[in-house]
Amino acid sequence: VSAQRDAPGPRRRDAEMLAAAADVFYRHGYAEATIRDIAETLGILKGSLYYYIETKEDLLFRLLTSVQDDVDRIRAETVGRDDLEPLDRLERYVRRQAEYNVRNLVLITVFLHDLDQLTGPRREQVLARRKLHQGCVEDVIREAQAAGLVDPESDATVLRHCVFASIVWTYRWYRQSGRARPEAVADLCAYFVLGGLRRSALRTA
Amino acid sequence: VSAQRDAPGPRRRDAEMLAAAADVFYRHGYAEATIRDIAETLGILKGSLYYYIETKEDLLFRLLTSVQDDVDRIRAETVGRDDLEPLDRLERYVRRQAEYNVRNLVLITVFLHDLDQLTGPRREQVLARRKLHQGCVEDVIREAQAAGLVDPESDATVLRHCVFASIVWTYRWYRQSGRARPEAVADLCAYFVLGGLRRSALRTA
Repeated sequence: VSAQRDAPGPRRRDAEMLAAAADVFYRHGYAEATIRDIAETLGILKGSLYYYIETKEDLLFRLLTSVQDDVDRIRAETVGRDDLEPLDRLERYVRRQAEYNVRNLVLITVFLHDLDQLTGPRREQVLARRKLHQGCVEDVIREAQAAGLVDPESDATVLRHCVFASIVWTYRWYRQSGRARPEAVADLCAYFVLGGLRRSALRTA
Repeated sequence: VSAQRDAPGPRRRDAEMLAAAADVFYRHGYAEATIRDIAETLGILKGSLYYYIETKEDLLFRLLTSVQDDVDRIRAETVGRDDLEPLDRLERYVRRQAEYNVRNLVLITVFLHDLDQLTGPRREQVLARRKLHQGCVEDVIREAQAAGLVDPESDATVLRHCVFASIVWTYRWYRQSGRARPEAVADLCAYFVLGGLRRSALRTA
């Protein structure tokens, strides 16, 4: 355990490489970014970076899948909790995911802006995984509708988009320099989304 | 009246020019778009377009301010209705604005993606006007808090971002080819947002 902490292993080197790539893609945009920029950010030679990757797209693909790994973990620990009722699972999911997004603005921005730059089967893989994730969240909304907790007349797909909107849009307004702490933002997003979903929120007009 | 309908007046020519510019900026991105592309879309010569504008940025500025004119009108007719209680005003605002966004995906996308391309005092003008708009909506949320309709402990700025998220994020998911009608999407957005704001939406966790 101690040896693992002292010597930067391949996992840590990997994390540093991905963080540098995210930073460069964020600042220059993926299209303009170069492997040289990323190597310079890491303080190594361009040739050394080619020891780990073959193309710039390799880095983008690994970045996006690492975000998807994190999102899968969050989903498993919240939406996947079959012992809890559906709205409770959704509330936990929104809180965890909103906090993750606010704490990882650079990664999330690269994910949203540069996903379209991926090509071929890797693009298909990322899109299929995202679709699967969205479907899982929508399934819990449908479960809540079946249980009478959410209006069964409402379009579950539109509701799912509203849920994601509250989480995702943080990347456009949240600034780490602002006064709102990530946990407070996450709490309020979860509160807002739950209120929006609950059947008790009757139409006034 | 009949003469006005038969001969396309300057107002109609203006609207056609802005629609063509929006279309070209949307398809090519503002940076890549050329005056020639816009003239071709209109079926006129590049030189004829220069009769109305001096630069590509003129067109972007006029486009963005025309969106802001529409948004101001929607706000005046909803948020500005002092005869209604604050949550009722907000609900009407969200419904109208969400429907506008869904019906004007090209304009809204250009607004969100290309605003940063404006320079100098015109950029400042558009940003100041947007800030004023956001402040007006936030003021109504604060009014609702003062009236005990929205939790006064909640951060009104974060709530305002959640309200805008539901409206704005439609540009990323709504496809006119989809089965959800604009009015139905607008209704559900308004329902969701109102539920999210209402104090009755108590925390469960």
